Amino acid sequence: MTEPLRFLELPSAPDVSFWARLAELKLNEYKLSEDPIPCVGHYRACAHEGLASPLTLTSASFDLDTTYESQIRMEGEVVLLNTLESMKTFDRKGAALGAIRKVEASVQSGTCLSDPTALNRFVLVCFADLKQYTFYYWVCVPAAKTADPILSEGFTQGVDQAACEACQEYYHSETKGRAPFWVLEGGEEGGYRCRPIDNGGEGGEDDEIATVAFVDPSHVAGSPGWPLRNFLWLLCGGLCGLRRVRVLCLRHEKLGRFSASRSAWHEVAIPPAGSDTTVNAVGWEHNSKGGLGPRSANLASTLDPKQRASSAMDLNLKLMKWRALPGLKTEEIAGARCLLLGAGTLGCAVARILQGWGCRKITFVDSGRVAFSNPVRQSLFQFEDCLDGGRPKAEAAAESLKRIFPDADAEGVQLSIPMPGHPVREGSDLHRRTLDQVSALDALISQHDVIFLLTDTRESRWLPTVLSLKREKLAVSVALGFDTFLVMRHGCLAQGSDRLGCYFCNDVAAPLNSTKNRTLDQQCTVVRPGLASIASALAVELVSSLLQHPLKGAAPDKSESILGVVPHSIRGFLDSFEQLKLSSPAFGNCVGCSPKILDAYDTEDCEKRTSFLTRVFNEPEYLEEVTGLTELKRKAQEAMDAMEAMDLSDGESGGESGGGGGDDDDDFQLL
Amino acid sequence: MTEPLRFLELPSAPDVSFWARLAELKLNEYKLSEDPIPCVGHYRACAHEGLASPLTLTSASFDLDTTYESQIRMEGEVVLLNTLESMKTFDRKGAALGAIRKVEASVQSGTCLSDPTALNRFVLVCFADLKQYTFYYWVCVPAAKTADPILSEGFTQGVDQAACEACQEYYHSETKGRAPFWVLEGGEEGGYRCRPIDNGGEGGEDDEIATVAFVDPSHVAGSPGWPLRNFLWLLCGGLCGLRRVRVLCLRHEKLGRFSASRSAWHEVAIPPAGSDTTVNAVGWEHNSKGGLGPRSANLASTLDPKQRASSAMDLNLKLMKWRALPGLKTEEIAGARCLLLGAGTLGCAVARILQGWGCRKITFVDSGRVAFSNPVRQSLFQFEDCLDGGRPKAEAAAESLKRIFPDADAEGVQLSIPMPGHPVREGSDLHRRTLDQVSALDALISQHDVIFLLTDTRESRWLPTVLSLKREKLAVSVALGFDTFLVMRHGCLAQGSDRLGCYFCNDVAAPLNSTKNRTLDQQCTVVRPGLASIASALAVELVSSLLQHPLKGAAPDKSESILGVVPHSIRGFLDSFEQLKLSSPAFGNCVGCSPKILDAYDTEDCEKRTSFLTRVFNEPEYLEEVTGLTELKRKAQEAMDAMEAMDLSDGESGGESGGGGGDDDDDFQLL
Repeated sequence: MTEPLRFLELPSAPDVSFWARLAELKLNEYKLSEDPIPCVGHYRACAHEGLASPLTLTSASFDLDTTYESQIRMEGEVVLLNTLESMKTFDRKGAALGAIRKVEASVQSGTCLSDPTALNRFVLVCFADLKQYTFYYWVCVPAAKTADPILSEGFTQGVDQAACEACQEYYHSETKGRAPFWVLEGGEEGGYRCRPIDNGGEGGEDDEIATVAFVDPSHVAGSPGWPLRNFLWLLCGGLCGLRRVRVLCLRHEKLGRFSASRSAWHEVAIPPAGSDTTVNAVGWEHNSKGGLGPRSANLASTLDPKQRASSAMDLNLKLMKWRALPGLKTEEIAGARCLLLGAGTLGCAVARILQGWGCRKITFVDSGRVAFSNPVRQSLFQFEDCLDGGRPKAEAAAESLKRIFPDADAEGVQLSIPMPGHPVREGSDLHRRTLDQVSALDALISQHDVIFLLTDTRESRWLPTVLSLKREKLAVSVALGFDTFLVMRHGCLAQGSDRLGCYFCNDVAAPLNSTKNRTLDQQCTVVRPGLASIASALAVELVSSLLQHPLKGAAPDKSESILGVVPHSIRGFLDSFEQLKLSSPAFGNCVGCSPKILDAYDTEDCEKRTSFLTRVFNEPEYLEEVTGLTELKRKAQEAMDAMEAMDLSDGESGGESGGGGGDDDDDFQLL
Repeated sequence: MTEPLRFLELPSAPDVSFWARLAELKLNEYKLSEDPIPCVGHYRACAHEGLASPLTLTSASFDLDTTYESQIRMEGEVVLLNTLESMKTFDRKGAALGAIRKVEASVQSGTCLSDPTALNRFVLVCFADLKQYTFYYWVCVPAAKTADPILSEGFTQGVDQAACEACQEYYHSETKGRAPFWVLEGGEEGGYRCRPIDNGGEGGEDDEIATVAFVDPSHVAGSPGWPLRNFLWLLCGGLCGLRRVRVLCLRHEKLGRFSASRSAWHEVAIPPAGSDTTVNAVGWEHNSKGGLGPRSANLASTLDPKQRASSAMDLNLKLMKWRALPGLKTEEIAGARCLLLGAGTLGCAVARILQGWGCRKITFVDSGRVAFSNPVRQSLFQFEDCLDGGRPKAEAAAESLKRIFPDADAEGVQLSIPMPGHPVREGSDLHRRTLDQVSALDALISQHDVIFLLTDTRESRWLPTVLSLKREKLAVSVALGFDTFLVMRHGCLAQGSDRLGCYFCNDVAAPLNSTKNRTLDQQCTVVRPGLASIASALAVELVSSLLQHPLKGAAPDKSESILGVVPHSIRGFLDSFEQLKLSSPAFGNCVGCSPKILDAYDTEDCEKRTSFLTRVFNEPEYLEEVTGLTELKRKAQEAMDAMEAMDLSDGESGGESGGGGGDDDDDFQLL
């Protein structure tokens, strides 16, 4: 009895690795482009009683020359749409027809004879929700559809062993995944021979029956797999003009061997190809509910949560490049090793913004413990950290970064920063310990790229200023007043004679022991609570802009990077909601960065260095003496006295002294 | 045998309540002042074999009229120093001498006769480290010291019961804590009589022996307690001119009853008061190591940690008033009930700064869950919150605030904000649910004082804009672009005809459904990571300045509060590190705040309101129609067409349309 031959749908089976690779491609290469991504899937002969062999798609599917000896290739393309909405309105009909036109072209050109895998293609249309790791997708293996169907004229389950073995040999030795079909000659007593299809030898006569073998992914008796459809219609009927074909549908018993009992013969009649060319293409896959519609794959649960967090952070960064700034090199700041001196209000805030930029290597230096007043202002601590005397701040801050982002490479170092004017008796334990602290800090600074000076006293910034300059690291200072802030990048040696100033350049006094006699309001962070967030964020954004600059930290004040200007310093005022960009050159007598200081801190000569440092710690005025400030001040005073003697001074200019600007320490109380 | 009489030191015993109250006084009243704080301590007769009765100081010590029937008052003062350093250099000698001068004055004026407690005073000098809850203190009960000592001429342990009982009766019935000494008359067979001291009846003759009773805190046999010293020297010797005194030192057996066996008689000789006036004062207490030096009390462990966190937060705030801004009313913002619409990057950052200002009542509204990309940007979440599909954001954010500060009154409400152009079929479940959401949001806005609009779409700000205005609440919008931000306080009805604009005033288009077709970069927070911190902090600081203004949210654009200016809006640009203050009046045809909208959203007429809202949700153009924007646009187009017909236009002005400024939605893509 003749009836339309029914083909079993080829189910698609993209695996986790396929989606992971696809996500990667979208993020790194395709971005917002919806251009089709070429791809190759594979299927086998069916080896299961109850399940069809699927079209498998893996991460290797994007390497187009991937072949497997025992699997049939199918080329296709992935169309990655940008919204779920456009997924819904996607022109499925057009896409399927487009694919079938390519198949037809291979038939017309005859290239499908040398590579019969060209007779089937697939289209996978997809919207990837990378925030939720959910992929909405729909696969089509389009087949040409015409008015008259292909007819089944007979079906015999089970074939002779000899046919199976001949096919087995041919399939595994010759075709390398490129033979979904081939010609089977001979048979009965003379044995079988396999050879590739061509359009010469075979038929043309209406009643001649060609015999072909087909690697059949279907598991249903009487229904061959979907890829046979184009083969019969376009190749046998269309190209070779065969009207009647005998098809050996090869299935496996166990993986890798064709099974005589599970394979079957189909007698097929192909309607003549007349004026009735392909008018339609069918083949969009049914979803799990049996309807026509997309499927979804949620990979969230299959991924390691830590890895998801890590990809999510990368996603944040990559998204910035897609539309906003394609030329942005987020890896510059993400890869920077950052040292944060101080794990207080500023340290916590700076670390968080750095983490937002994808920065993993963050080291805190602090000698304090978390106090009860801290958590409401210092965003890496919570109440629990205050109990039992308080956890060491540096350590608690580092752990907090890991709680936020498990891949953080955060570390806390409990260390006091030695300070000028904090006496250490030579030869004492304290003296040795202090020199050890200097070495430890020097080592830390050498091991990092960007040094943030975020401590709450002026004098604790002195040694880091000197060391950062010596080690040629980018140093950035943040300091707060009650409602004012200063963010400043220190100048660096590479700037040569155009060197920008350091934190101390505007200050003509050497840092003294300011912790000695501080009242409660000076010990605490007496600032408007929003101030630290603003200043810290600006400091990190200044660094992020700088690291995009070809000269990095050596960029001159008026220059720009892809992220914008890179000012020397930013001062902000919350009482007027104003912000100023200011610049000042390095001051030749500066106690922090002048040549005499750099010379005195000799990285080679340990004895010279130690003796210099010892005097700095013990003698409050020594730094001014070294840099010539003492002399400068004396001369300024003399000039002033001379002025006064002439009675030309109105008495108000007495506050100014030569060299740098005025001492604005009162304005910017360093917290 | 005659030898110098030794007096036992009166140990000081300030308890926890004393320190707590002292801390409070410093924070709220004395601040940086070092003026002496008047205070009263108490001691009893000794009731213990091995321990002297101490001078107890409690929270009641600061209420000067506190008296206890069975305890002797001692007035004194607390000198609260601002630094540990000044504690070390404190003029102890001068302070003791100062106190003894006061005692001498009471002797000279005779007031010590009516109140003999005036014969002893104490000085407590203290540095309170309120961050660590450690009090460093030193107490002195100064006694006049002269060249010649008071001599003991005899000592008898145990006294007769009759004397004890007479004293008991007198002490408990008459003196109310103001009789450390009194005269004891009679004795032996005639019985004893007690009466207050006066300088009439008694002696003057060298050899006359007066008999007095003394409530003795000392536990050591042969050594009366310290308060006796001034009494004998200044009162008996100095004022009354007695040379020999018999003292009944009264001690307790059990609390409340004088004990005949534990009490004792002392025969005392007082050297004549000649030209040898007081040259010195002694009495600084020995510390626990037996040396002269301050003691410390660390209350940290005795306080409830949550209470410590709470006081620490208060301390942060109070410190701002001490030096920076004595007129600052931190309670204005600390007491504000804040509603945060959106618990994302902005919501988290705003909440943290509010907490820094002491704000306790913070409610989050958000319908989302914490995603893996969130914690590195949204400072209230951590990795753990992303697991198992993510915790509801509003709830997780609220709990995080409590982890930071246990007293936080934080709440999370999982709620979607209904939006214009998001259709809801009338009568459907969605329709009912949407109207419920409107009511819920209205109720929330009514229950709060400041409404922060921190969502990531333009249309989700529409309903909150309308409701905040209707309910006369201060509304503040924060919106981010890639490297630009907008912080804006909405105008309010109290501003009358000078009303400032709302978020929609510069925008001539009604909010449409913008979530419908957003690509990945629009769904995510594609902004420079520092941006949200800056914008959020500025928003809270703007609110903090506004709440100090007498007109609060109704303050005009150019006015100032104690914290500074209160601009209408602040725009910031990270590419140029610039910040602008901008102002714009309310736009009469605004879709968010124009009179027609306020009228259509009728809080009284439910039916009218519902029908208005239903059309707003379902008909994208309806808002423009209501406000007359449609008509305005039509006229503008007509004018434009007419211009073009006259060929006067150069074709570039076509982008402008009448009414507000240009639509800068592209610039400020709302995330």
